[in-house]
Amino acid sequence: MSDTIFAKIIRGEIPCHKVFEDEHVLSFLDVGPLSVGHTLVIPKEPAVTLDGLSDEASAAIGRALPRICRAVMKSTGATAYNILQNNGTDAHQEVMHVHFHIIPKLDGKGLGITWNANTIDHAEGAKLAERMRELIG
Amino acid sequence: MSDTIFAKIIRGEIPCHKVFEDEHVLSFLDVGPLSVGHTLVIPKEPAVTLDGLSDEASAAIGRALPRICRAVMKSTGATAYNILQNNGTDAHQEVMHVHFHIIPKLDGKGLGITWNANTIDHAEGAKLAERMRELIG
Repeated sequence: MSDTIFAKIIRGEIPCHKVFEDEHVLSFLDVGPLSVGHTLVIPKEPAVTLDGLSDEASAAIGRALPRICRAVMKSTGATAYNILQNNGTDAHQEVMHVHFHIIPKLDGKGLGITWNANTIDHAEGAKLAERMRELIG
Repeated sequence: MSDTIFAKIIRGEIPCHKVFEDEHVLSFLDVGPLSVGHTLVIPKEPAVTLDGLSDEASAAIGRALPRICRAVMKSTGATAYNILQNNGTDAHQEVMHVHFHIIPKLDGKGLGITWNANTIDHAEGAKLAERMRELIG
């Protein structure tokens, strides 16, 4: 695991506009925001992608997210927002430390989404879901 | 809260390709997938948006996500993927029950993202983060 900018923020070597902190989680404003109030939520555990995160750290992120979302909404006045978490450079991940974006939709600014939906093949879907259930155990 | 299609799936009134289930969480394949393996993860608690979800339900979603992501990756071969969770119609929410998308990046298919980043105003950012900290308490 490389020493990312987020690892340096966790260690206090780089300053941040801190929003929330507990034993497992740190949250701070994104310095390149898509909209005012764009906030990051990261685990202190140094996982690159979400699939590499421990149950404990991931549960702590989950627990913190609604509280931070409420603060983002109240402080900005946003009533709509997106949560985005990217894994892998092909999926637009830029910092190689797990991070959740909370992105308010404000004044026409926010996350742009392109949604090219397909229709599921139900026979293939049934097989795929069965395989996933086996993998989860 | 309206009686959404997800509430009906939770009650077993509408079938799904189930991937995972525990006391708080249900996961199943999206029937309008952006890519093969596109999976939804929802709380059984009937919250419309993430900010309305209880700590317990949200922690359970957090805990389940990495396990389900690993199964999505292994079963599809995807190495990159996005987690997306939309809140409010202005942020592309279509079903009014909290849901996290796990969207593999596969064969050029997956989530399309437009990222029009701005630069933070550090003086305003410091004030905003302070207000958020006060709100979280």
